[in-house]
Amino acid sequence: MGKHKQKKKQRKIKKLVEEDENNIIDDGNHLVQCIEKLQELQEELEKINEEKSVELLKVEQKYNRIRKPVYERRTNIIRDIPAFWSTAFLKHSILGGLVSTEEDHKIFKFLSSITVEQSEDVKSGYTIIFDFEPNVYFENRKLWKTYTFLEENGHTKITTSSIQWVDDKGVDDDSFFRWFNEVTEHDEIGEAIKDLWCDPLSCFHHEENEEGGDDVAVKDSKDDVVEDTEDAEQDI
Amino acid sequence: MGKHKQKKKQRKIKKLVEEDENNIIDDGNHLVQCIEKLQELQEELEKINEEKSVELLKVEQKYNRIRKPVYERRTNIIRDIPAFWSTAFLKHSILGGLVSTEEDHKIFKFLSSITVEQSEDVKSGYTIIFDFEPNVYFENRKLWKTYTFLEENGHTKITTSSIQWVDDKGVDDDSFFRWFNEVTEHDEIGEAIKDLWCDPLSCFHHEENEEGGDDVAVKDSKDDVVEDTEDAEQDI
Repeated sequence: MGKHKQKKKQRKIKKLVEEDENNIIDDGNHLVQCIEKLQELQEELEKINEEKSVELLKVEQKYNRIRKPVYERRTNIIRDIPAFWSTAFLKHSILGGLVSTEEDHKIFKFLSSITVEQSEDVKSGYTIIFDFEPNVYFENRKLWKTYTFLEENGHTKITTSSIQWVDDKGVDDDSFFRWFNEVTEHDEIGEAIKDLWCDPLSCFHHEENEEGGDDVAVKDSKDDVVEDTEDAEQDI
Repeated sequence: MGKHKQKKKQRKIKKLVEEDENNIIDDGNHLVQCIEKLQELQEELEKINEEKSVELLKVEQKYNRIRKPVYERRTNIIRDIPAFWSTAFLKHSILGGLVSTEEDHKIFKFLSSITVEQSEDVKSGYTIIFDFEPNVYFENRKLWKTYTFLEENGHTKITTSSIQWVDDKGVDDDSFFRWFNEVTEHDEIGEAIKDLWCDPLSCFHHEENEEGGDDVAVKDSKDDVVEDTEDAEQDI
């Protein structure tokens, strides 16, 4: 092979190696660009999701405002129905089973109202309020429990009214009223009371199946109204 | 007592009895009216809640439309990153553990793309689609599974692509690909794939802790980009 040819071949090889190296660098750069572009798109998606959350929250807030006066009218009407809230509470599929002691049943006779208040900005939580007639058990006229969803760490902060028991009237371990001292985050009772709040009338109408077993019968509301009248007339 | 006085007293008693009876009937009527009014308010609340659901759905639909082209751009970019979807899938905290057999790992090398498509009206479900390069395991180029939420009974209808295995290439009981034959309603895998779809890049970047244990370390994405480049250069 002549010197000229050899040099030419060497140059060719050098060129091919350089091209290969460039390709490797190009491919690497291309990959970086892809990942960077992907990261940008991910941020774009997150921004869209945040905007969606804000919009969903606004809808929730709007309908909370719309529902509020309806709930207030409902509270006023319920005042005229004797023992409405305690009846509905005790007939609720989850809540009823939690009121098992004789003492609890006596205390529930003094329950005059239940209210669930959404926090101003909805997503930050809610408060459950039990109103009581003056009674021999505790000094409080209101027992309450507030759930605050903390955005910074995803946890729920719980604050409760402290029950001012009269003298030795404190309740035992089986009592429902222990719940007012508990601060467990995943609180099914709180959720069940929200469920009761959404539709207390269906609980109030709820008839336990006398035949026993798990079956429950919810009667047609029209029939119930008639039956309630008859009951009311007989009771008075 | 004179006759006049006696008659007067009898009239008075009769009047009191009548008043009492009227009161009983009035009270009964009042209770019926209260329950009826309560029923009306409950229907009003339900109507408000339905309107809210429609409005929330419209927001979801609007943002699905906004996200769609971003997802399409993402899919195009991902095509240029070798083994992106299989890497992200295998590094996902739930999904990775489901691909345990050697055969599955071989099949996953042919996975070219994952797509999650929301149904037109959003609330009625979604479809998961796996695209594959031609391979020796099955004839299908697409495997898919569709979840349809049935409004009438609250159940989920599931339809899946049937895998056309090549000859004797069917997989054993431990295989992930069994999932394409399952029609369980509460499908955590479907939800996990939706989770992967929302942010595959964080799974792709996810580094397993070599020290073992449950701890996982997600590196800063900026660092990862640099490291990915280096890896890429070394690999080529």
